Amino acid sequence: MKRLFINATVATMKDGAEVLKQGALGVEDDKITYVGEVPEPQVQEQFDEIIDCSGKAILPGLVNTHGHAAMTLLRGYADDLPLQTWLEEHMWPLEAKFTHVQVQAGTALAAVEMIRSGTTCFMDMYDHMDAVAHVVEESGMRARLTRGVIGLCSEEMQNKKFEEAVRFATEWHGQADGRITTMLAPHAPYTCPPEYIKRFVEKAGELKLPLHTHMSETVKEVEQNVRDYGVRPVEHLRQLGFFDLPALVAHAVHVTEEEIDILAEHDVKVAHNPGSNLKLGSGIAPVTSMLRKGMRPGLATDGAASNNNLDLIEEIQLAALIHKGAQLDPEAVPALTALKMGTIYGAECLFLDHEIGTLEVGKKADFITLDLTGAHMQPLHDVVSHVVYSASRGDVVDMYVNGQPLMVNRELLTLDEEKIRHEATRAFQALLQ
Amino acid sequence: MKRLFINATVATMKDGAEVLKQGALGVEDDKITYVGEVPEPQVQEQFDEIIDCSGKAILPGLVNTHGHAAMTLLRGYADDLPLQTWLEEHMWPLEAKFTHVQVQAGTALAAVEMIRSGTTCFMDMYDHMDAVAHVVEESGMRARLTRGVIGLCSEEMQNKKFEEAVRFATEWHGQADGRITTMLAPHAPYTCPPEYIKRFVEKAGELKLPLHTHMSETVKEVEQNVRDYGVRPVEHLRQLGFFDLPALVAHAVHVTEEEIDILAEHDVKVAHNPGSNLKLGSGIAPVTSMLRKGMRPGLATDGAASNNNLDLIEEIQLAALIHKGAQLDPEAVPALTALKMGTIYGAECLFLDHEIGTLEVGKKADFITLDLTGAHMQPLHDVVSHVVYSASRGDVVDMYVNGQPLMVNRELLTLDEEKIRHEATRAFQALLQ
Ligand SMILES: [Zn+2]
Ligand SMILES: [Zn+2]
Repeated sequence: MKRLFINATVATMKDGAEVLKQGALGVEDDKITYVGEVPEPQVQEQFDEIIDCSGKAILPGLVNTHGHAAMTLLRGYADDLPLQTWLEEHMWPLEAKFTHVQVQAGTALAAVEMIRSGTTCFMDMYDHMDAVAHVVEESGMRARLTRGVIGLCSEEMQNKKFEEAVRFATEWHGQADGRITTMLAPHAPYTCPPEYIKRFVEKAGELKLPLHTHMSETVKEVEQNVRDYGVRPVEHLRQLGFFDLPALVAHAVHVTEEEIDILAEHDVKVAHNPGSNLKLGSGIAPVTSMLRKGMRPGLATDGAASNNNLDLIEEIQLAALIHKGAQLDPEAVPALTALKMGTIYGAECLFLDHEIGTLEVGKKADFITLDLTGAHMQPLHDVVSHVVYSASRGDVVDMYVNGQPLMVNRELLTLDEEKIRHEATRAFQALLQ
Repeated sequence: MKRLFINATVATMKDGAEVLKQGALGVEDDKITYVGEVPEPQVQEQFDEIIDCSGKAILPGLVNTHGHAAMTLLRGYADDLPLQTWLEEHMWPLEAKFTHVQVQAGTALAAVEMIRSGTTCFMDMYDHMDAVAHVVEESGMRARLTRGVIGLCSEEMQNKKFEEAVRFATEWHGQADGRITTMLAPHAPYTCPPEYIKRFVEKAGELKLPLHTHMSETVKEVEQNVRDYGVRPVEHLRQLGFFDLPALVAHAVHVTEEEIDILAEHDVKVAHNPGSNLKLGSGIAPVTSMLRKGMRPGLATDGAASNNNLDLIEEIQLAALIHKGAQLDPEAVPALTALKMGTIYGAECLFLDHEIGTLEVGKKADFITLDLTGAHMQPLHDVVSHVVYSASRGDVVDMYVNGQPLMVNRELLTLDEEKIRHEATRAFQALLQ
């Protein structure tokens, strides 16, 4: 199947590339085969389908670099509380009741939400991950998946979880036409003993899989790390060899300049979660310093319970706004950088930038279209600025992943939205019984 | 005409009121005549039209307490620059070319955008205000309008602008079935000499109109005030008698605790502009302190050129998020407070709370409906939380102002959107010639 999308404003997100004002994108099967000016009619004839995208922008699909999709079920269940209270008294007791039923229902709900808001690829760290993988398979999305493991338990339980994480990562890596890749993820330094983290590091090296963990989200957890291990979390993870392998850390809110130097030196990827960090009162990550030191952080929503949605366009906008305000610097995180954080930097964070994140010949055909005709997009002077500062999720019109349409003209093609909505409500209500 | 809206989730925004899960709203002509449970069939028969709102929330219309609607024309024209450079080198030169053509076109574009995102009432401070008033008349919206005056000019010019501001305020106050009210507005302490501000204060007292101005938006302007007048802006305006009348100040980003005390004591209203303050790198206003001291700040977008849209739902969300993150306090600005800031507190800021801001019998029928069936609104556990943290402008379905429908099922009934879009583009292009 060869499709040609014409007459679009094409923002490839390649470093240094100009936005094409009247551009075209060619797709054959799962790959991008053409990016450029609208080709001559005789060239167009070689395509099976010509799709007119007048009044639309084409962008790489958005990449959500950290989350817990099934937590959509707990959206709005407990707001405006301190992180530890929220986690320990509200989230964990209810999450303890989650079975694969909740995880399937919550992840399907998340998939609908992510597709509708332009996210083609997401990172997920949770339990009952087979259910998550099945939703990814069915939805047509791309995902980097991992069984997130909390190690505050008996050795027997630790072993069981470890085996399960390894089993999942091995079994699913490369599945769903390569749309699913995996990684290994001890939950956090404050929820996993050092030796346990070390086992994951060794196994990841052996399986050639990247590592992921939560790191330095709150002041409290950094203090606890210093109390328990004598060093801050960055040095702690460095000593455990975590940064000798491809690694992605979520949050990095409370990191010093010296810690940023260590992260940059080891090419550690950072998932910046502006919405969740604000909502939980965790703080504002020093993203401008990371950027200055050559790091390229991606964006993430974290779970919907602390956000409370899975809208990457919102995170792009927050990333472009909050650092300017917090540092009294209107030049902090310019619009183009924020959009790259939501696309190519995100792809780099998931170690998938050889396949996705920009619109380039040879890459996978993962892209979205955005309506440019809304009043809030006029005058159409600067598309990148408009996508970052003016757009909202409702402007996303079409989505393709691996060359396959998942949403066309805001109609979902792979998922039954109404059924998913009802199942999610039922699965949530079952938790309250 | 008597309309009854039934089966809705009704959030009245009255202090202490519970959300009605299966509620109804009755409207006769321009007023609300019923709020409560869905009435019996025999009561329903007394209405001319019954509108089923299953799967929808009904909320008071959102109130935008500070802006310059026509600046939509400059959206995305110059981003990511320091305030003074942005104003002096980019905005003011282009704005100097604005005629009533640009103001009409830009304000009409703004009206489309505001209606589509749930704003029923807005405050506007600009030039060529007759054009703005005509758009308000035609659109069916409600507005508090004022000719914003910069006094850095000859005495002759000062007089001319003053007369114009007074003429506009007198002529239009109470027009368009009372949907238009006015006020007087010297632009800012740093753009108006003290004696000039004083003339506005005196005239406002005489005409019994409220006052409005920009105040303490940036560190630089506060320093300039101290340099020029020996006091910070709050004390400066207090000395000029500005706070002896009903007054609304926009921004109040850089105000000390003592200044907040003065504002609270004089019941000065504050228009909090989180998006614009972040984008321009101006800072984060001490809203939690204002709230603690009993103030009830409203929300605003400021002009679209520094935002870059007119989306109050986004401002509500920013207000609920940024203070938590900046102060490491997840309990700062709870969801319900943020929603009140966008509705009833906003109405209070515009001195229109006797007419709008809550859904109460006797008030004007200014309200919106929101779709609650989107994936991002599930499970439907807490509507206020969902509107604040999860919703987006695309969820706004219907709008009524003064009992008249302005948007039904996302169709605009009073404005020709396509014509407005084209005229706005043409008016913008004329500026670049
Ligand atoms: Zn997380
Ligand atoms: Zn302003």
